[in-house]
Amino acid sequence: MIYNKVALIGLGLIASSIFWSAKRGALAGQVTGYARSAATRDTARRIGLCDTICDTAAEAVADADLVILCVPVGAMGAVAAEIAPHLKPGAVISDVGSVKKAVIEAVQPHIPDGVHFIPAHPLAGTEHSGPKSGFAELFDNRWCLLVPVEGSDAAKVAELRAFWEGLGSNVEEMDAEHHDLVLAVTSHTPHLIAYTMVGVADDLRRVTDSEVIKYSAAGFRDFTRIAASDPTMWRDVFMTNKDATLEILGRFTEELFALQRAIRTGDGDLLFDYFTRTRAIRRGIIDAGQDTDAPDFGRVAGRK
Amino acid sequence: MIYNKVALIGLGLIASSIFWSAKRGALAGQVTGYARSAATRDTARRIGLCDTICDTAAEAVADADLVILCVPVGAMGAVAAEIAPHLKPGAVISDVGSVKKAVIEAVQPHIPDGVHFIPAHPLAGTEHSGPKSGFAELFDNRWCLLVPVEGSDAAKVAELRAFWEGLGSNVEEMDAEHHDLVLAVTSHTPHLIAYTMVGVADDLRRVTDSEVIKYSAAGFRDFTRIAASDPTMWRDVFMTNKDATLEILGRFTEELFALQRAIRTGDGDLLFDYFTRTRAIRRGIIDAGQDTDAPDFGRVAGRK
Repeated sequence: MIYNKVALIGLGLIASSIFWSAKRGALAGQVTGYARSAATRDTARRIGLCDTICDTAAEAVADADLVILCVPVGAMGAVAAEIAPHLKPGAVISDVGSVKKAVIEAVQPHIPDGVHFIPAHPLAGTEHSGPKSGFAELFDNRWCLLVPVEGSDAAKVAELRAFWEGLGSNVEEMDAEHHDLVLAVTSHTPHLIAYTMVGVADDLRRVTDSEVIKYSAAGFRDFTRIAASDPTMWRDVFMTNKDATLEILGRFTEELFALQRAIRTGDGDLLFDYFTRTRAIRRGIIDAGQDTDAPDFGRVAGRK
Repeated sequence: MIYNKVALIGLGLIASSIFWSAKRGALAGQVTGYARSAATRDTARRIGLCDTICDTAAEAVADADLVILCVPVGAMGAVAAEIAPHLKPGAVISDVGSVKKAVIEAVQPHIPDGVHFIPAHPLAGTEHSGPKSGFAELFDNRWCLLVPVEGSDAAKVAELRAFWEGLGSNVEEMDAEHHDLVLAVTSHTPHLIAYTMVGVADDLRRVTDSEVIKYSAAGFRDFTRIAASDPTMWRDVFMTNKDATLEILGRFTEELFALQRAIRTGDGDLLFDYFTRTRAIRRGIIDAGQDTDAPDFGRVAGRK
């Protein structure tokens, strides 16, 4: 047991997975939960999510050793302000937001003296959301990035690291600025592009919806999976990691125009060289154990 | 048995899968194969690919009832010219190219009287290529599009349809123009975008390669899989389906700019509405049996 009492604020995919995983690892004596929506709290109670579901955030965080904000990035500041007066001295407050600079700016000013704020970001998720979407294995062998702020207590950081390792994660530390750039490349921009491609396909009238769906396995399908992620979460990501995302998008557009020009002018050599280079990075991902080399045919449901 | 003798010209992922699947279904009395590269022919012989591997295309197609061109789209015309004098009267010549208008333009002029040209495109593949990458199940429950040309013999088309159904496919007919547009939306443009995103990530110096790879599971990874496909095949696709691809790319850029502007101006409502709409198309794909609803966490290799 690492913490006596853990409070989860917001009860979606990540919070519910934290709960089931903490139970599996016996990492917390008691876990309380709170969600703004009464319907979500009812669902949580019905499925046995958390030891206690509280009707106020104040109640949930009372006496908690670790409070994890599991709400969309845009809601972090308001929630921090609401719970701040109720935090126990010596408590750790953390979060799971996909953006770190904006969360630190929003939350830090509300943190009372004697409370330790240690931002975190587990790189884990699925395209599903809500309290029923969580499962204990979500964080197994996935990265969790800790982003300690200036003056973070080393012992408290070590404790939070142990907690995330207990949840199954591999933990790294990183500063907020670098975190936001790395995620803009590996996650935020790819998501925006996937959303865009799916939106384009949805708009096309000559290619009917049914054909787009019917023949989606030819490449498009992989985009729809990531474009099915939670809209609120992703809106907030782009609103708050604006600079890094726009920078990477600018680079993306530049490259896309170069390839588009090669298509228009018939420069096959440029395309061939480009496509050969991108193959190597795939090999690196497989070697790093971040995906399998198995051909991608097992994911198709076998229904006629 | 549907054909007495089938000849496969080009021995990559698709041809080798056709061979193993035709064996599984006992669809052909005899299957011959030919590849331009001696090394590929040697590999094919070593792994038992095809009943006979011939050293010339002419030999492979002699007396064949069905000849399938399984070479990159850009090579179809030359191969057709080479084998044309050796085709048996009444034979069917087909292909597996991802683009249809350009293949018809390249191949059709070489087809002798009395030989039936019926273009086809199986929507199946993996990110692997070469004679060793094939497997009998590749076409199971995947679509195969037949694109008959004017005056195609109905009985010969029905026979080819039965062959592809025997390989496990669901078969539809479509005209070439429409085929090329549908594929530009569902396959060609998504691939180009994935290649671009991977290229951008590869270029970034501040985010090191190792970080891009290490944290790839956050969304980027799905792009690398499709960006690892065969460079020659994809160069030819973009060189030959230029108009439809450029049209869809234009639409894509327009939408991307609208979303980029929403990020820059802080228009969260626009993003939220957009991301909500794209969720629906995902649901359609699952309902159509083209993907599973299982959360996407099973694909991560469990190595630390």
